[in-house]
Formats: sequence, structure tokens, C-alpha cells
Amino acid sequence: MRAVALRDGRLHLRDDVPEPVPGPGQVLVAVTACGICGSDLHFARHAAEMTAIADEMGGLPLRPPSADLTQDVFMGHEFAAEVLEAGRDTATVAPGTLVTSVPLLLSGVGMATIGFGNAPPAGYGERMVLSAPLLQTVPNGLDPRHAALTEPMAVGLHAVNRARLEPGDGAIVVGCGPVGLAVIAALRLRGVETILAADFSPARRALATTMGASHAIDPAEASAFDLWLTTYGTKPPVVFEAVGVPGMIDAVLRDVVPRARVVIVGVCMGRDPITPLWAITKELNLQFVVGYDLDEFASTLRAIAEGDVDVAPLITGEVGLDGVAGAFEALGNPDDHCKILVTP
Amino acid sequence: MRAVALRDGRLHLRDDVPEPVPGPGQVLVAVTACGICGSDLHFARHAAEMTAIADEMGGLPLRPPSADLTQDVFMGHEFAAEVLEAGRDTATVAPGTLVTSVPLLLSGVGMATIGFGNAPPAGYGERMVLSAPLLQTVPNGLDPRHAALTEPMAVGLHAVNRARLEPGDGAIVVGCGPVGLAVIAALRLRGVETILAADFSPARRALATTMGASHAIDPAEASAFDLWLTTYGTKPPVVFEAVGVPGMIDAVLRDVVPRARVVIVGVCMGRDPITPLWAITKELNLQFVVGYDLDEFASTLRAIAEGDVDVAPLITGEVGLDGVAGAFEALGNPDDHCKILVTP
Repeated sequence: MRAVALRDGRLHLRDDVPEPVPGPGQVLVAVTACGICGSDLHFARHAAEMTAIADEMGGLPLRPPSADLTQDVFMGHEFAAEVLEAGRDTATVAPGTLVTSVPLLLSGVGMATIGFGNAPPAGYGERMVLSAPLLQTVPNGLDPRHAALTEPMAVGLHAVNRARLEPGDGAIVVGCGPVGLAVIAALRLRGVETILAADFSPARRALATTMGASHAIDPAEASAFDLWLTTYGTKPPVVFEAVGVPGMIDAVLRDVVPRARVVIVGVCMGRDPITPLWAITKELNLQFVVGYDLDEFASTLRAIAEGDVDVAPLITGEVGLDGVAGAFEALGNPDDHCKILVTP
Repeated sequence: MRAVALRDGRLHLRDDVPEPVPGPGQVLVAVTACGICGSDLHFARHAAEMTAIADEMGGLPLRPPSADLTQDVFMGHEFAAEVLEAGRDTATVAPGTLVTSVPLLLSGVGMATIGFGNAPPAGYGERMVLSAPLLQTVPNGLDPRHAALTEPMAVGLHAVNRARLEPGDGAIVVGCGPVGLAVIAALRLRGVETILAADFSPARRALATTMGASHAIDPAEASAFDLWLTTYGTKPPVVFEAVGVPGMIDAVLRDVVPRARVVIVGVCMGRDPITPLWAITKELNLQFVVGYDLDEFASTLRAIAEGDVDVAPLITGEVGLDGVAGAFEALGNPDDHCKILVTP
């Protein structure tokens, strides 16, 4: 079958990938849609560095992806798919059922991440296997392309859940890529009224407003932190750092008002110098977050299906398996694209 | 009068310092005892760097000390003193009353830090002025040398108050200098049963146990974080980073168990590289803290006076004004000394 593989930093479409075979407790599915994630882009460029960090992190339950980079690596972890058949000893799931799942595969030897591995194929392929106990049925009538956005939107919900929001809290979201936009949607769903969003890209700022930001700011023109103080009140905002490049945490520590809570949801790889004295003098609180739990994943799917969160505006492109490499290129420009779906 | 001054990184005893004159709302006091703080040692060595950082931090309400380094700088902010006379328009405070105070001086133009300034003299001098509204009367019978430890002990109480402790929480205190020991005392006072303390110095480990640590660990021999997991349970500890040198925050992020709260009470000057991925993958929470409020200062004095906290073991030396320079040297070795008091 056909699947996209990464080798030596380049994506290539293979047509000779062995057909995946569902084991006990697993189902074989046909991928309907799979979103391209920023971490995929990062891995394609910095696979060796990420793998080295993952190896250093050893026994942690959650850790960055690791793979044998001398072999093909398969990616794609934001997917919706159609059930084809169940493996042995698997609770019946009717063929044709539309599903999604957290990108984890259970097996007798433990739990593996779907995407970033050498086997089996992940979301950028025609077919893959999923674990039956982790399946979430996509509700009737929900566009599978929208269901594929459950995973990235759940990241935003989790960040908001871990932010210890209190009634009356407002937020500043720094960076309006898919993660920042997911945070904005989750904040709006939670009923947070004041949400200032900051991004250099006009297109991303427009999306931020669409997803629920009360005000979208160009950091080249004005500071969201200054605007907060002059216009939105004196209670410190909850700040979500959703850029994840070196220097961003320190910039937030420098610019934010005293006593603020800062949720670090952007994933900065490698080492990153900070100035502790900024944080000490302002008595800041930093909450680092990652991923989501099964409940958050399920409730995100429900929110999308019930129309509480409209993910349609986030989808700015759609490609077949032969268009994945080009889509990775195109996503380099935030003004052109937000989320591109691969529809095998 | 006599007072110790810092110029060009060297302490010298002056006998020609102008007699301080209490303004409206101020009292003139004779210093009875003044503790030497780690930040004094740091300032004596890195005054230019600290002043540059302070200037960069501009308008923050709390910021590191700043002074004109081409002039004499006066230090000493952990003091007990005896009231000599009140200035104009000052609520009566009987001469002879033993007092302490947060190291702040109110005036018509605002609020100044006592210690680290060019004027007026601070705790390492025969006399100084204090603000009457900020005075705390030392309870009858309390040794003024013990009252002088109110300030550093309040730092520990504040850190513990900001740690959001829950019933059943245990703690790991990294670093058993005066700040770490103050944290241990405050944890014990709060009723925290499991307190693991870590320090390379045998003398400091002994003090940690004296102040209430349930176990004092030599990091060269064992990891407090490993010991926590093997012996003290699975609930993540609340970790207090009380070392404050570059690299310590990152070491804690690397070693601590997932989902822990880390209170940064050590003050690391300058830039400090961290590895955000450690914190992200473990979903750590970092609470930076500094100082204390007036209530915390007052309740610390009360706790010392009532014998709830015994600070006597922390005092390892006593010098006159002519011994301050030597005491700064001696404090470089943690096995020799913890807190040296200057008794003018």
C-alpha cells in the first residue's frame, strides 16, 4: 500500500509499504483525513536532535518521539479513519464506522506512539491499525476532516484545563498557530470573555478573531501586555505561550505583568536561556503542559460535533499522499496556511 | 559615627559617617544586631552586574538593589535595634524600645530599600533611621540577636505560603543555606511531616535536621528525588530550589518527578539556560517567589518570640563593625558558618 515516509530529512511516497495487520485488540482502518502538525514539520527538519533529546529523557512516561533515523519514519497523528476489519479477540466494531483516536497503540509489550515511529504506518498512509479500546466513534454527520482536528484542539483544551482559571480571569495568547488557536477556542468555550491574541501574521490574527479572540494584536505594532494594563484591567492575565521557539519564554517573563500565571504550551526544543530574576521579581507562576488525557480528547470531539467549536476555518488546504512533501513546504509561511489535511 | 561601607568591591569601616537624622514619621535607632545575608555577599562581589540588572528592570515595584557604585554603599537589612528618639510628627515610640522592621524606609518621595543604598546608613552601622509605621516591637524577653533573624526567616515563610501546599504534601528542599533552612523551619511550623533536605555540606545538613528536616541528604551520595520515590510515596513532592546559582533550575527540572510543583526561592542572578522539554514533558509547575509581606514578617517575629521556631542554632558567629569584612570572607565556607551577626 501507499504511505509517506521520512528518510534523511526528506519525505517520499512509497507504494510498497507492507499492508498493516491488526493484532489482538486492534482494528485495521482506512485513513480518511490526517492533519499535518507543527511537530511533524519540526521532526522533518530536526529529527536527529529530537531523537537525541528523547533518548536522554529515557524512562519518562511522556517523552518526545524517538526513532531509528537510518530507517523510514512514518508520521501523522491527527487522523480520522474508517474501520475496515477487526483483529483477533477484538470487541466488534462495525466495518464502515468512522473513528478517531488518541495517537497511541496498545500492545502486549506496552504503549507506542502513533507517528514518529519506524513501524507501523501512521496517518500519512492509506491504512493503519488502531487500538479498539481507544477508539472514539465520530458522531453521525460530522465531517471526518473536522474530526481529524480533534487531536490538536484537545491540546488547547488541556492547556486551559491546567491553567487553574478563576472566574473573571482574562487571557493573553502569544502565538496564533494551530496550538494558540486551539487555546483560544478552548478559552472561548470556557466562557473567558477577554482574550488578547498576538501574532505577526495578519492571516493568523484574522483566524484568532474567528476562533474567539476579543482582540488580535500585531506585536510589531503594540504589546498585548501593555494593552492589557491600559484597557483590560489590573488583575493579571493568564498568559499562554504558544510559539515554542528559543527566547520566547524569556520574552514573556520580561514583558508580563507581576503575579501572572504563564502556561507554556509551545514546545521549545533544546536549551533556552531565561532570566530568572524577571520571574523572581514578579513572582510569576509557570505551568508547563503537554498533550491531553482521554477525557479531554473525547470531549473535544464532542464539542466539534455539536458545533460548540467550529474548526472549519482552520483548514486551509487539502492534499493527497503525493502532496505531503509540498504541503510541508507550504506550511512554512503562516500567512498562506494554518492546517493542511492529508486525505489519502 | 561608625558604619561599614562598600566601595570598589571592598568593605571598609568608616568613623566619619554623618549622624542620621530622623525625618517626619521616622525614628532614630541604635543597631543591636544585624545579620549578614547571602545577597550582601553577592552584592559585594557582583555589585555592578546587580545594579545593571536593577536598572534594566526599571519600574518594577520589587527589584534588585541599585546604587551609585562610585560612592560608598551601605548594607545590612536583617536587624534588631533600640529606639533612641523620634522625629517630627512621629507617633510616640518610647526610647529604649527594642524593635525590628522590614528593610524599607517611607518618605515623602516614596519607598526606599534599607541596605544596598548610598544613604542613609543601614544595619552595619551604629545608628540608622526607621519608619515608625513599619516598626515591629520585639516582645519582652526575646534576645535581640534572635529578633534580627526575623527577616531571613520571613523569606522562608513566604515561600511556603506561596507553595499552595495541600494536606499530605511533602517537600524536598534543595540547598540548606539560610534561605533553605528558613523554608525548612516554615514547613515544619506548617506541620509538613516529610521534609527531605539536600546539601553538600555536613554542617548544613546537620542544621537542616535541627530545623526540622526529616532526612538530610548529601547530593554526592544520593538523590533526594530518587529517595522520595523509593521511600516516601508516589505523590509528587513540593520542591524548594534554595541554591540560586546558574544551572540549578535546570538540574531540578531534569531530576524532579513528573507533575511536581517547584518553588524557586533561590535568587539566580544573570541568564540561566533551562531545557523547557524537561518541564513540558513532566508538566511541571514553577512558582518564583521573593520577599514577604508585612503580615508574614510580623508572624515570623511572633513565631520566634513564642519559641515555635528556634533560630539560635543558625547563629554561628558574632562580630563587631571591625569584623564585618572578615565575616564576609568566613561565610564563603558553608561548613564553618551559617549566619554571622554584626553587633555594633
